[in-house]
Amino acid sequence: MTEDDIQLAHRLADAAGEAIRPYFRAAFTREDKADASPVTEADRGAEAAMRAILDAERPQDGIVGEEYGRERDDAERVWVLDPIDGTRSFVTGRPIFGTLIALLEAGKPVLGVLNQPILGERWLGVAGRRTRFNDSVAGTRECAMLGHAHVATTGPKYFTPEQFAAYTRVTDAARDSIWGGDCYNYGQLALGQLDAVIEAGLKIYDFAALVPIVEGAGGLMRDWAGRPLDHGSDGRVIAVGDAQLMEPILEVLGG
Amino acid sequence: MTEDDIQLAHRLADAAGEAIRPYFRAAFTREDKADASPVTEADRGAEAAMRAILDAERPQDGIVGEEYGRERDDAERVWVLDPIDGTRSFVTGRPIFGTLIALLEAGKPVLGVLNQPILGERWLGVAGRRTRFNDSVAGTRECAMLGHAHVATTGPKYFTPEQFAAYTRVTDAARDSIWGGDCYNYGQLALGQLDAVIEAGLKIYDFAALVPIVEGAGGLMRDWAGRPLDHGSDGRVIAVGDAQLMEPILEVLGG
Repeated sequence: MTEDDIQLAHRLADAAGEAIRPYFRAAFTREDKADASPVTEADRGAEAAMRAILDAERPQDGIVGEEYGRERDDAERVWVLDPIDGTRSFVTGRPIFGTLIALLEAGKPVLGVLNQPILGERWLGVAGRRTRFNDSVAGTRECAMLGHAHVATTGPKYFTPEQFAAYTRVTDAARDSIWGGDCYNYGQLALGQLDAVIEAGLKIYDFAALVPIVEGAGGLMRDWAGRPLDHGSDGRVIAVGDAQLMEPILEVLGG
Repeated sequence: MTEDDIQLAHRLADAAGEAIRPYFRAAFTREDKADASPVTEADRGAEAAMRAILDAERPQDGIVGEEYGRERDDAERVWVLDPIDGTRSFVTGRPIFGTLIALLEAGKPVLGVLNQPILGERWLGVAGRRTRFNDSVAGTRECAMLGHAHVATTGPKYFTPEQFAAYTRVTDAARDSIWGGDCYNYGQLALGQLDAVIEAGLKIYDFAALVPIVEGAGGLMRDWAGRPLDHGSDGRVIAVGDAQLMEPILEVLGG
């Protein structure tokens, strides 16, 4: 990964934002995919805009995108794109969805951008560097004990019943919890506003960008077995702002 | 209610916003009330600022506020204040909480303001007039059938188990649903971005301001028995953007 890749990631985020903004709170066509999640013209336009840039400037790299699938995904370097993470927030007029852009090297996320194009908020995570939020450095807060933690997840239906029971054990032991939020929760964790985010059923494009952002802010991301996240992860994700909070959460989730 | 009351409501919202903004995403003291909801300095500062204005300018009127309780609440005119509705959003850095300001006349909400001080978004509802969103008119969208509706609620724990089961029957019959959002959901409904919001356990200061906003935008607000909302309501609330959607929701909620 080079400085050029970082600049390219910014340009991808800019292009996606330009494609998305005209559709926010405007009338648009909504369709239902097989899994009933809303897909909009904004989603597709934003991913197409990012793919056009990558096709022109990184023709050797692979691409995995939520809307248009996989190309060369066995390449050493793979760009992972989610044009609108939090489509339900987007279609209900909440400006807390995000565009997620990651670069994987050998399956491992080394660069991540979370961009909120309505509010002009952008998080940049680069492996080995401190995370940036707009023009400043982002940092998580200390919170080693589950009893002090504010925990977030997007909604109960993203869990299986067993996973929801496990999540509920965690929130019963936590100080407080909040619903909704999608990728924005991880951004707030990187700003020291939340202590843990716990989700399941995520795809690589839902979490790859978040790993360098959370970890570069002082946090830690793992799967529910405590393993680092990569392209082979099963979609069960834990993010903590304070690395010491991971163990108690893993314990309670495991029952 | 007079034009002066509307101007006063704007000044109350301005004052609350000034008190709140310095605390957003900043370090602050959090305490737990008996019901474990977070209370912040911002909450209290904003309500105190609004009460100071009302004490000076409307000494005869009653006040009911979330943080500082009731004064002259048997008066003909009562101001109802929730300095930060969506405190969990506020303390986790999500800019979708709101200040709610209502004026009740004879127990009935005739004026409502929903103010989002970080984004500079303000909804104004006045009985018998069209709702305003910042400098434009706000309007709900048509959606008469539950199978086409996008429904929202803040979180499962705000319901009793029976209420949650009833809510789940509604979302199972609806097109889609989203979690989180507090008062902001009603604002989005007034903008035609959501079709229904269903909640329970609300206090008068959580919903009074929303009635003129939703109804002035073309929607309807009722309790779960289909009755209009006033100071005697039991806290179970339904808002719909299209009045025709109320009946199917009442039917499914009732089992």
